[in-house]
Amino acid sequence: MSLHINGIAASSGIAIAKAFRLENPELNITKKQISDVDAEISRLDNAIQISNTELEKIRDHANAELGEDKAAIFSAHILVLNDPELVNPVKDKIKSENVNAEYAMNEVASMFVQMFESMDNEYMKERAADIRDVTKRVMAHILGVTISNPANITDEVIIIAEDLTPSDTAQLNRKYALGFTTDIGGRTSHSAIMARSLEIPAVVGTKEVTSKIENGVMVIVDGLDGQVIVDPSEEELAEYKAKKEKFELQKQEWAKLKNEPTVTKDGHHVELVANIGTPNDVEGVINNGGEGVGLYRTEFLYMGRDNFPTEEEQFESYKTVLESMGEKPVVVRTLDIGGDKELSYLHLPKEMNPFLGYRAIRLCLDQKEIFRTQLRALLRASIYGNLKIMFPMIATLDEFRAAKAVLIEEKEKLVAENVKVSETIEIGMMVEIPASAVLADVFAKEVDFFSIGTNDLIQYTMAADRMNEQVSYLYQPYNPSILRLVKMVIDAANKEGKWAGMCGEMAGDALAIPLLVGLGLHEFSMSATSILPARSQMAKLSKADMEKLAEKALSMSTAEEVVKLVNEI
Amino acid sequence: MSLHINGIAASSGIAIAKAFRLENPELNITKKQISDVDAEISRLDNAIQISNTELEKIRDHANAELGEDKAAIFSAHILVLNDPELVNPVKDKIKSENVNAEYAMNEVASMFVQMFESMDNEYMKERAADIRDVTKRVMAHILGVTISNPANITDEVIIIAEDLTPSDTAQLNRKYALGFTTDIGGRTSHSAIMARSLEIPAVVGTKEVTSKIENGVMVIVDGLDGQVIVDPSEEELAEYKAKKEKFELQKQEWAKLKNEPTVTKDGHHVELVANIGTPNDVEGVINNGGEGVGLYRTEFLYMGRDNFPTEEEQFESYKTVLESMGEKPVVVRTLDIGGDKELSYLHLPKEMNPFLGYRAIRLCLDQKEIFRTQLRALLRASIYGNLKIMFPMIATLDEFRAAKAVLIEEKEKLVAENVKVSETIEIGMMVEIPASAVLADVFAKEVDFFSIGTNDLIQYTMAADRMNEQVSYLYQPYNPSILRLVKMVIDAANKEGKWAGMCGEMAGDALAIPLLVGLGLHEFSMSATSILPARSQMAKLSKADMEKLAEKALSMSTAEEVVKLVNEI
Repeated sequence: MSLHINGIAASSGIAIAKAFRLENPELNITKKQISDVDAEISRLDNAIQISNTELEKIRDHANAELGEDKAAIFSAHILVLNDPELVNPVKDKIKSENVNAEYAMNEVASMFVQMFESMDNEYMKERAADIRDVTKRVMAHILGVTISNPANITDEVIIIAEDLTPSDTAQLNRKYALGFTTDIGGRTSHSAIMARSLEIPAVVGTKEVTSKIENGVMVIVDGLDGQVIVDPSEEELAEYKAKKEKFELQKQEWAKLKNEPTVTKDGHHVELVANIGTPNDVEGVINNGGEGVGLYRTEFLYMGRDNFPTEEEQFESYKTVLESMGEKPVVVRTLDIGGDKELSYLHLPKEMNPFLGYRAIRLCLDQKEIFRTQLRALLRASIYGNLKIMFPMIATLDEFRAAKAVLIEEKEKLVAENVKVSETIEIGMMVEIPASAVLADVFAKEVDFFSIGTNDLIQYTMAADRMNEQVSYLYQPYNPSILRLVKMVIDAANKEGKWAGMCGEMAGDALAIPLLVGLGLHEFSMSATSILPARSQMAKLSKADMEKLAEKALSMSTAEEVVKLVNEI
Repeated sequence: MSLHINGIAASSGIAIAKAFRLENPELNITKKQISDVDAEISRLDNAIQISNTELEKIRDHANAELGEDKAAIFSAHILVLNDPELVNPVKDKIKSENVNAEYAMNEVASMFVQMFESMDNEYMKERAADIRDVTKRVMAHILGVTISNPANITDEVIIIAEDLTPSDTAQLNRKYALGFTTDIGGRTSHSAIMARSLEIPAVVGTKEVTSKIENGVMVIVDGLDGQVIVDPSEEELAEYKAKKEKFELQKQEWAKLKNEPTVTKDGHHVELVANIGTPNDVEGVINNGGEGVGLYRTEFLYMGRDNFPTEEEQFESYKTVLESMGEKPVVVRTLDIGGDKELSYLHLPKEMNPFLGYRAIRLCLDQKEIFRTQLRALLRASIYGNLKIMFPMIATLDEFRAAKAVLIEEKEKLVAENVKVSETIEIGMMVEIPASAVLADVFAKEVDFFSIGTNDLIQYTMAADRMNEQVSYLYQPYNPSILRLVKMVIDAANKEGKWAGMCGEMAGDALAIPLLVGLGLHEFSMSATSILPARSQMAKLSKADMEKLAEKALSMSTAEEVVKLVNEI
């Protein structure tokens, strides 16, 4: 009989294929006395060589599929693998102690890992992780154990894993990895966001797929309803094939809306734009009929590397995105690093509550050189398209003024250097801290636009970390308090003739869209794949009716009541 | 020449005395071969005995000065000191390896400390700290090194320390510790709060007192202006003696207001009540003319022990406070544990952002037996005074309803058991999460009162951890967004005929008081020692003028503008 496992629908679509368990093999390493030292050393060399070839393949794949930035980590791994400071002590140990290669490698690697990990330094800790990964690969080859590497998959499969790190996901081959399901994670975890941008159906947070699904068994991942069906019956297979077809048809329907504007049935126009992380994502925005980019997360430019991106590197990325989007608006968010997003080469202090800490604009206003480099790159790129710049985590008007002042300083410097800069760049801010929503009327006088970042705004307003499973029930997008704050921001923008957008997960949520239309949100920024469904949904809504709906919701007492109200439409 | 060091004024008053550096001595432990094993063992036994006597003294002192709950930790230390599992291996090591006692103790202690610390368990980690403290004391005695113990001070001194832990502060003798100053900490750190309740002048967060002040040098701690003067000149000594006298006179002036009501000069009455942590604090409330207790923090009942307090223990504490306060109101906050307040015997998971995590009412509604025991104790005590109960960290109406339902269930059970329960207990909530301030109108229909917890409300509204020095500048009580949220709560209470109080640090802040009077706050709960200064300040304010002031402040853009406005009164 088939087994049904519930989880969180993280990326829509239906995938049907055999299970492929992506797991780190348990290596059984015991100390053995060996007699033939040369043979042992050649076992080691051989394993290193195989690992080298594998890593080069992974790097090239990442380079082609995901870009140079994401491939950089594997170049670092290859360097580790060929570092004589790692390899020579292993050989010495084999020779002097007459021990087996995997044991010698494990001893040396553990020593380095412990040494780096004990340094209270994130960069060194990441180096420890690199050494662990690389040496594990070598030891697996010495032992003849197979490592499940997502880049090595050459069959159509469903990936089953405890969790997928961003680098696991980066290695997925869309052609073969038809879907995935994990034990942990939520709709806003990195792997879920990545799945939506790769358009791979995914169900996360199931708690038990790895304990319940064997390799090779047939699995259905229903990313529409958050279900995983293991070993489906013939009837179920037929049912889900039909559901998959229906979904594909619906996607075709949506595709017809690709070049249409977004209009409610009573003629109210809104803008549907996309969240992107790299220039590679632009293709998806255009394919999905996005009317622009509402949030370009520039962090990715800074991640998975050993030092800050240069002004030139940044300029190239920004220019590429702006040129590809043509006249369509591109809202770039300046660096939002810190909190859960760390950079190995930026030595941030350990914080007790990183979400309430030194991050984003706080960091940029403190370490201004980082900020200036980014702003110069943006300003230089501005002439290649329709650029808008926004600052993240603005809590006080002083911060917005200070950030804007740095931007203007850099602009004036460029102009003095005879560098061309657009004269029509809008300068806005994220509203993701309760203080700035409550004071939106004050901010509205000085900004060109707002973009409401609901992921953080909800966390702070409810005082609940959405990644913390024990309190994630308090992460309530439909809580009337959140709707009231959103309304404050939109009303403040309207009063000053500015526009208000939203770039949190909520903007693309089918249940929130009627309320947001009713509240008068001007711009909705979401995963590219949500744009066409949202456009289709909005075409069926009347703005006038939604206004009444939103008014009712604002006076309600609980999130539950609001959900019930919207479900009754 | 004298040296002036700036810091944060943490507890008011002026103290003048010689410096006493409270520091952990560096123990120089080297391995030595010994020949006389018996002599070495008697060195050890001797040091253990001295330590034992010392610890008993500290425990008795803590018991008399601070109550049983605070003394419990030292009983635990005495148990550690006499544990054969610790002492026997040390003796074995001396015998079998012919090594010196301090070396043997250090080896064994390090082994236990490492073992306990490596367990991912807060309780075990605390045990590791206990072992470290206790064995350090023994090793110091073996080496003949003096430990600076605050309880041992028998001279009038100013304590100079890097930081004071709550247990350091607990051991301070008010008679001899005339004042203290530390390198780190802020106005709301534990040591600062403790200093205010002990009425010891204190300047914290100076960054450099330990590096600049030698033992025995004359020091002035100016807890009014946050200054430390080292080696003052004759003129300075005279000046500060005069300032001290003036302050004492002002205190006498304030004392005259002790039994007076709190009334503005235009006849508006508000209630000035105190924050307390234990029944011992009640004396201070009465001596300082408190009109009641606005916040009884019940956490202290749960801290510094090995298991939950029984219903009976809790009942006795609540009853004592209620009886001592007579007809005056006592607002008890139910257990607010979690976040930075951990209990060794309550095994809470490690959280990435504890301030946004599983704590207070979230924990109580999840682990209801803990909650029920406390509520039963409170209900039983209710007939001994004027009890009001409030729930901490309420984010949603569902939570308030659920908490109130448990309270009513327990009340009905008691009534069925023929236990007397007051029929007039008011049931309210803390407003310390932005969501509940924004929805105050909804909550006001169901609560009897609000108490605004500004410490947390400001942290969440500004998304800034006030304990994190890199972002503490964003902890802005005068930010107009905070004032607006406070106004929402007070207006909502007024509309429904309920009352609104405040029990965060802001309620006792001389700069905030004019604004809070203007906003119409009904009840101000503060450190007992702030009550008389506040009453004196309010008598000079006109409510009508403050209303205008508050209105102006609400429309301002930044905290700085608000501070300037209030300073102009």
